[in-house]
Amino acid sequence: MTREFSRMLLVLPEIKELLRQNKKEQLKKIFYDYEPIEIVEILKEFSLKDKVFLFSLLDIDLAADIFEKTDKDDQLTLLGAFDKTRKAEILDEVAPDERVDFFEQLPEEMVLRFLSIMEEEEAQDVRELMRYDKNTAGGRMTTDFAQIEKGISVEQTLKDLRKTAKDLEMIYYIYIVDRTDKLLGVVSLKDLIVAQPEREIDEIMHTKLIAIPINMDQEQVAKRIARYDFLALPVVDKEGKIKGIITVDDLIDVIREEDTEDMYKFGAAGKHIDNYMSTTPLSVARHRMTWLLILVVTGFISGTIMEEFSFALKNVVSLAFFIPLLMGSGGNAGTQAASVVVRGLAIGEVKLGDIWRVVRKEFLIGITVGTALGILALLRALILQKSSLLGITVGLSMIATVTVATCLGAILPIICEKLGLDPAVVSGPLITTVVDISSLLIYFGIATQLMEFG
Amino acid sequence: MTREFSRMLLVLPEIKELLRQNKKEQLKKIFYDYEPIEIVEILKEFSLKDKVFLFSLLDIDLAADIFEKTDKDDQLTLLGAFDKTRKAEILDEVAPDERVDFFEQLPEEMVLRFLSIMEEEEAQDVRELMRYDKNTAGGRMTTDFAQIEKGISVEQTLKDLRKTAKDLEMIYYIYIVDRTDKLLGVVSLKDLIVAQPEREIDEIMHTKLIAIPINMDQEQVAKRIARYDFLALPVVDKEGKIKGIITVDDLIDVIREEDTEDMYKFGAAGKHIDNYMSTTPLSVARHRMTWLLILVVTGFISGTIMEEFSFALKNVVSLAFFIPLLMGSGGNAGTQAASVVVRGLAIGEVKLGDIWRVVRKEFLIGITVGTALGILALLRALILQKSSLLGITVGLSMIATVTVATCLGAILPIICEKLGLDPAVVSGPLITTVVDISSLLIYFGIATQLMEFG
Repeated sequence: MTREFSRMLLVLPEIKELLRQNKKEQLKKIFYDYEPIEIVEILKEFSLKDKVFLFSLLDIDLAADIFEKTDKDDQLTLLGAFDKTRKAEILDEVAPDERVDFFEQLPEEMVLRFLSIMEEEEAQDVRELMRYDKNTAGGRMTTDFAQIEKGISVEQTLKDLRKTAKDLEMIYYIYIVDRTDKLLGVVSLKDLIVAQPEREIDEIMHTKLIAIPINMDQEQVAKRIARYDFLALPVVDKEGKIKGIITVDDLIDVIREEDTEDMYKFGAAGKHIDNYMSTTPLSVARHRMTWLLILVVTGFISGTIMEEFSFALKNVVSLAFFIPLLMGSGGNAGTQAASVVVRGLAIGEVKLGDIWRVVRKEFLIGITVGTALGILALLRALILQKSSLLGITVGLSMIATVTVATCLGAILPIICEKLGLDPAVVSGPLITTVVDISSLLIYFGIATQLMEFG
Repeated sequence: MTREFSRMLLVLPEIKELLRQNKKEQLKKIFYDYEPIEIVEILKEFSLKDKVFLFSLLDIDLAADIFEKTDKDDQLTLLGAFDKTRKAEILDEVAPDERVDFFEQLPEEMVLRFLSIMEEEEAQDVRELMRYDKNTAGGRMTTDFAQIEKGISVEQTLKDLRKTAKDLEMIYYIYIVDRTDKLLGVVSLKDLIVAQPEREIDEIMHTKLIAIPINMDQEQVAKRIARYDFLALPVVDKEGKIKGIITVDDLIDVIREEDTEDMYKFGAAGKHIDNYMSTTPLSVARHRMTWLLILVVTGFISGTIMEEFSFALKNVVSLAFFIPLLMGSGGNAGTQAASVVVRGLAIGEVKLGDIWRVVRKEFLIGITVGTALGILALLRALILQKSSLLGITVGLSMIATVTVATCLGAILPIICEKLGLDPAVVSGPLITTVVDISSLLIYFGIATQLMEFG
């Protein structure tokens, strides 16, 4: 009865056979046994013509649910293959937020053409939702929510809900408004079920609401919903009128997207493009190039520093042997600190006001870790190069490099956040490159103090 | 009416004043205007004695909700300060999954002591839930779900639900079982509201269920719930009996935790400890040290390689000037590829079977990016060192290093996944260190071929 996702595809031969025999009723029945997202996977195995035929068997509700889950690229192809009636039906029926996501990637004249075949009410809804920035609450919300005017009874509310439930994405919260759509309160379906039928909705509603301003950034929205354990939060405009809701499953998409973006930034990999596997190598290369070029130019500075100190290198060539070790350790320690602070800022564990506590903490961590690594580096220099002066130079440089790197890794993300930049731009590669420069300066600085050249 | 979180603390002076005047009813009323998570923030500003007093004013339902949201460390202190009755009440009332999280961090004798004052049914529930690994479905699920036996009407189901709703965490899905608790189907509260009251529940229930095996890893669970837009999924044992449910808000915590772990691993920062800000520097240092030590020892290899080629460095000291640039660029390109593939595997964009497509793609990316950077490096060597041989050596090394690094960065995470390891252990620092070694070998290899030393 329960099943693994992979087993789903076992149904393929059966569908193909039924399709060949043109057994419509049986085909239809099979699809109703699966979740929309699963049907999307199944349909991938069929030609466009078969897809359109299979779609035509389904009731519009299920057809729209499947359409919503279909990859963005395939949605347009599919829609193009439908006849005009089916096209209009689908466009009218899909969830408002998914519909806007679909429209947003189309050229304007195509949007206008689609809008012209839709029902006026739905078209109006699209026009309104498209006004909001995609990464804000307005761009994320859906307009299919349950709303009632104040002053009616619990029983009447349930009756009304029964009629409208089928068309709503989320009926577990019912929002109570006045005549001007100003949001007054909320009741959950749980509250309704438990309450006496004759009570007035105004008496049982919660009036202290957590609402989301319509222009709030989606990352803030995600943080706010995650903080409270609600299934949805209402989105309101400046006058406090309810314009839509954001549901918890939209939030999951936002969290995943934001975390993906952070990971890409932290790896200095550029923007997350829709799907890695379907992007061309050249396009990926272009996205990664920007950061690499910046870092290469910074890398030139390391070369210049070494040229400056070439007199030292010429004299004691073994000085060079420890450069990879020092730069590497510094880069690694800096990356560690940066990853912790970047993530801490993202999930709210670290706050802007914590900057001095973070610096103090990372300084202590850096000293501790640096000393341990410094002793190791000293021993290696002593054993292999038999020079105590070189050993001390390398050991001290290691302590200083790791401490500086750890502090930099922790401070730079916080400074970015303070400047209104995303802390994740302080990527591992950026930290590594910055630390390369400082470790060379530290190393040659200490070497020229302790050792005599030429 | 709607409010920002920060405004919440404005109520503090009022509470303090009411507390001074001992106005219990008014204090109680204030708390009912806030969400549990907000009350937790407010309570942080009071002494333990005041907290216990304020808690004592509240009905047990709200008190338990607040207790659930309290930081783990404070839960124990609070509980210790309650009298025996209140202690037992709270322990009996909190959500089963939160309660187990709380118990799991306590020493065994303390758990036994708490269990002894709880109601037998609840204590039994704790014992059962504690048997499951914390990172599996069993360890994450809650046992407060709505379950009915098959064969009753929609009307009767709603009636039963009305009675039990208050004690349940999630009443929006009702699970239908047979006499042995074997899961047969599910109806949503929406289905129930819309259906004819006299219909039998068996007729309207969905029988094709997406269920979660009780020992499934939480990361898999998160992927599965995120895939379907359900508010909860049932957890079943080997015989198909329902043991609990996992709700979407638990899932959000799992996603955040998993993404945090991935970020820490990718930064080679060790384990994510409960809260960065409250962990001692020494403890953080210990967690980071393991990886640093491994990487330092690997870093020694770079030194050894350079010693091997010291004859070349002695002859052409300017060879050394380009080592940071080559190692840095290689490390950065490798980190980029690794971050993309690690994240791709985590969100399912990249699958195990894609390995050759990924390698082919990253090879092309590496060649493209490497050539661009190689030309830059060549130009720099020509301009500053006036040596075309050195320039060609550096340029070719750059192309080879960046290509190898990009491919390594992409392949290593996939190999880890194949071996059953977390791909995120292929961290930026690890890639950088591996690439350091290969870039030195490439560089000196090309140099000794093209240039004559001595």
